[in-house]
Amino acid sequence: MLGKTLTANSLALLYKLPDLFLAEAGTSGGEEKATIAALVGTAGIIFIFSVFLGEICTRLKLPTVLGDLVAGMLLGGSILGLLVFSPEGIGANQTFLKGLEFVTGADSGIVEQAYKFQMKDFLDESANIGLLTLLFTTGLESNLNELIRVGTQATTVAITGVTVPFVLGTLVLIKFFGIATIPALFAGAALTATSIGITAKVLQDIGNLQSEEGQIILGAAILDDILGIVVLAVVLSLVQTGEIEITNIIYLLVSAALFVLGAVFLNKIFGSIFVATIKKINNPAALMLLAIVFLNACAIIATAIGLEAILGAFAAGLVLGETEFQEKLQGLFEPFIFVYTTIFFVTIGAKIDLSVLNPTVAANQKGLIIAACLIVIAILGKIIAGFAVFTDKPINRLAIGTGMIPRGEVGLVFAGLGATTGALSNSLDAAIIIMVIVTTLIAPIMLRFVFPSSAKIDDADDECEKMPERDCVPISKFN
Amino acid sequence: MLGKTLTANSLALLYKLPDLFLAEAGTSGGEEKATIAALVGTAGIIFIFSVFLGEICTRLKLPTVLGDLVAGMLLGGSILGLLVFSPEGIGANQTFLKGLEFVTGADSGIVEQAYKFQMKDFLDESANIGLLTLLFTTGLESNLNELIRVGTQATTVAITGVTVPFVLGTLVLIKFFGIATIPALFAGAALTATSIGITAKVLQDIGNLQSEEGQIILGAAILDDILGIVVLAVVLSLVQTGEIEITNIIYLLVSAALFVLGAVFLNKIFGSIFVATIKKINNPAALMLLAIVFLNACAIIATAIGLEAILGAFAAGLVLGETEFQEKLQGLFEPFIFVYTTIFFVTIGAKIDLSVLNPTVAANQKGLIIAACLIVIAILGKIIAGFAVFTDKPINRLAIGTGMIPRGEVGLVFAGLGATTGALSNSLDAAIIIMVIVTTLIAPIMLRFVFPSSAKIDDADDECEKMPERDCVPISKFN
Repeated sequence: MLGKTLTANSLALLYKLPDLFLAEAGTSGGEEKATIAALVGTAGIIFIFSVFLGEICTRLKLPTVLGDLVAGMLLGGSILGLLVFSPEGIGANQTFLKGLEFVTGADSGIVEQAYKFQMKDFLDESANIGLLTLLFTTGLESNLNELIRVGTQATTVAITGVTVPFVLGTLVLIKFFGIATIPALFAGAALTATSIGITAKVLQDIGNLQSEEGQIILGAAILDDILGIVVLAVVLSLVQTGEIEITNIIYLLVSAALFVLGAVFLNKIFGSIFVATIKKINNPAALMLLAIVFLNACAIIATAIGLEAILGAFAAGLVLGETEFQEKLQGLFEPFIFVYTTIFFVTIGAKIDLSVLNPTVAANQKGLIIAACLIVIAILGKIIAGFAVFTDKPINRLAIGTGMIPRGEVGLVFAGLGATTGALSNSLDAAIIIMVIVTTLIAPIMLRFVFPSSAKIDDADDECEKMPERDCVPISKFN
Repeated sequence: MLGKTLTANSLALLYKLPDLFLAEAGTSGGEEKATIAALVGTAGIIFIFSVFLGEICTRLKLPTVLGDLVAGMLLGGSILGLLVFSPEGIGANQTFLKGLEFVTGADSGIVEQAYKFQMKDFLDESANIGLLTLLFTTGLESNLNELIRVGTQATTVAITGVTVPFVLGTLVLIKFFGIATIPALFAGAALTATSIGITAKVLQDIGNLQSEEGQIILGAAILDDILGIVVLAVVLSLVQTGEIEITNIIYLLVSAALFVLGAVFLNKIFGSIFVATIKKINNPAALMLLAIVFLNACAIIATAIGLEAILGAFAAGLVLGETEFQEKLQGLFEPFIFVYTTIFFVTIGAKIDLSVLNPTVAANQKGLIIAACLIVIAILGKIIAGFAVFTDKPINRLAIGTGMIPRGEVGLVFAGLGATTGALSNSLDAAIIIMVIVTTLIAPIMLRFVFPSSAKIDDADDECEKMPERDCVPISKFN
């Protein structure tokens, strides 16, 4: 058998020879090699694109998250076709798969399978780790007292920012586009979302997370996430049963309130238990590992009471951010932010179907017109919310509203559910996706300009001087 | 439908209500929640066991890697049954799965599927990341000139350490146990392996990686890994075709030699390209991301020429370790070491089938007797290799030999292939697994004692004084 291969193709043999042994000993060897190669190859390409486009954004003074989103769009099915997400797994174009086959010497079937299923799981899990870590570090960098202080203002912003786009969007769709009530309500609901991930990352990047505006945006985005779950529950129940289940809404609101109150009042107890435990342990890995255990426990509690895992991650960060390990934990989690939020934002970009922008498709033409309206409502609605802040102090209301604009991954969930449940027509679904794309891409650009450009270093350091009692690290230090 | 559930079980409802909406909207919501819960739950349990057992090891002055291996054994199928690896996926006991169902409110089928396939992929990929990162940081902390200087000594140790156990093991099995030539050769081959992962981690932990002994052990373990691939290729070809393919052996030896020479001679070029690239980029994530890209590229090149990905990772670390970013990269990769090598060693522990130690099973009785012989040969063979070092300087030869003892994951690969190909009888396969368990657990304990206990801080700092021209960071600093 080996002899035959030897005469057949000496070049291929040069690369495949060592694998023949493993292949003969069962498929496991070749499969594992293919998986490892798919893993490192895909991660490598994602990172190269991310660094290159991130650099372009940095030079244009735009947040790097924009580079990641655009990198994802380039790699996605609509353009280069290296990361093609579908419900069944991930596809890739044949050139890339052939390259992996050549490198690993594995059968094309094995490579394609390894790519399709294992890469989807890997990227989805990495994206989850990225989002959880991002919210955890956002919590770490936030100040609980500051968040409580701006609580009422954040609540006003959140409620206005949910109500205005929802009512305005639903009415405009019914009145001007003749869309039926339920799809119009669904599209209106999609307008309420705020992508806490994108906002948090941009605020981290430009060093404005700890400013008063930053904390209001953050608080409002967190509340928006909770309200978003309620709105989604209401709309889905309307789509499926035609009526609203009051019990569920009350249940969700009560559990959300309990969770927030729990994070506020139990924070000192959990914080001191954590500190006492770490101080008893000599293992240098313990701080990192137990912080992850705590993060995971909070994420599971949030999931168990019907909220989202990311809210638990944020609460965990908030608790540990009040301890003396805040600075050390920021340093430990920073490499995870570098790696996993990059994967998170690139996969968000890759999951966006750019073909909805093609005006030669009939359904898209109507979609593009609706989209234009939705975009205006989406941006206006959140900016109005920013001006709902009531305070005597001078505050950048425009910045607050702008911070709430990106719909990001939350908007894509609405669009996805709309398509799955059949609640939305093709053109309306396309319109929502376009609205999500535009608000997601435009918000980081706008945020960069509504916050003063010198903010990055100065504000963060000022913040430290203002809070000497706290282990405060200017974000600029980590850059 | 909701009404019926309401009367049915109010407690279950309390936890499941919010999911009903998502479950109705298609399975994706419940499935994703189950996956996230499985992910964070399993990682949490792995880390708690690792920290707890690691702490016991630290207090007993043993390396923490031992705690991870024992944690894995406890979690594995033989004892607690939380991480039961099988070729089809990962199983877990019903209590744990029920807990996940309760938390997520997902169907038991969904939870089991999520656990079985996605967790296996997640843990396998995490273990791969762990091993690659471990070898990369080992390369970072190594000194290329030092490795070249001890090159001939490492080669002597590697060749002696492969030849002695192989010849001795094969002969003893044939002469004293009447085992046929081919299975005896296969078992002899399993005795040649050295787990570079375990040795490197212990040396990092006790701060002896940069000592002369540490560098000889490392160099020998790297060469052993290359020789191991050759030996495996020879034995597998014998098992399957009954003859040895000389072409393959020559091919493997030539590609390994080219790879090593490439790493030695091209290192300055790649290093300066890397440094120049990083200095042009403003994005703070770029150093981490491009280091991973470089690591991945080296791993893929190693795979493509028929070597192992970890050799590429080591070479990548060696190259970047000579640049000015060495210290920064060590800091960036340390959290990955904390998280992923923990998962790597725990999964190694979980994959060990402890039932082979049960003396009431007939096949095990013969296995245990053979195992006792193999263990003696495995330990003696490597210690003899340590004494093969020729030098006039005082050097800890016992420590060098001891460093080569653990068979770890490499030994398990041999045992696994022996079972898959049918080359080994049950008792011989069991004997090899026992030999792997004992050498893997005993080596970290022995290493801790053959190196002087004050080594941890003093030697590492001395090392820095000796090499002022290099960015040298004592490992103690990171603890």
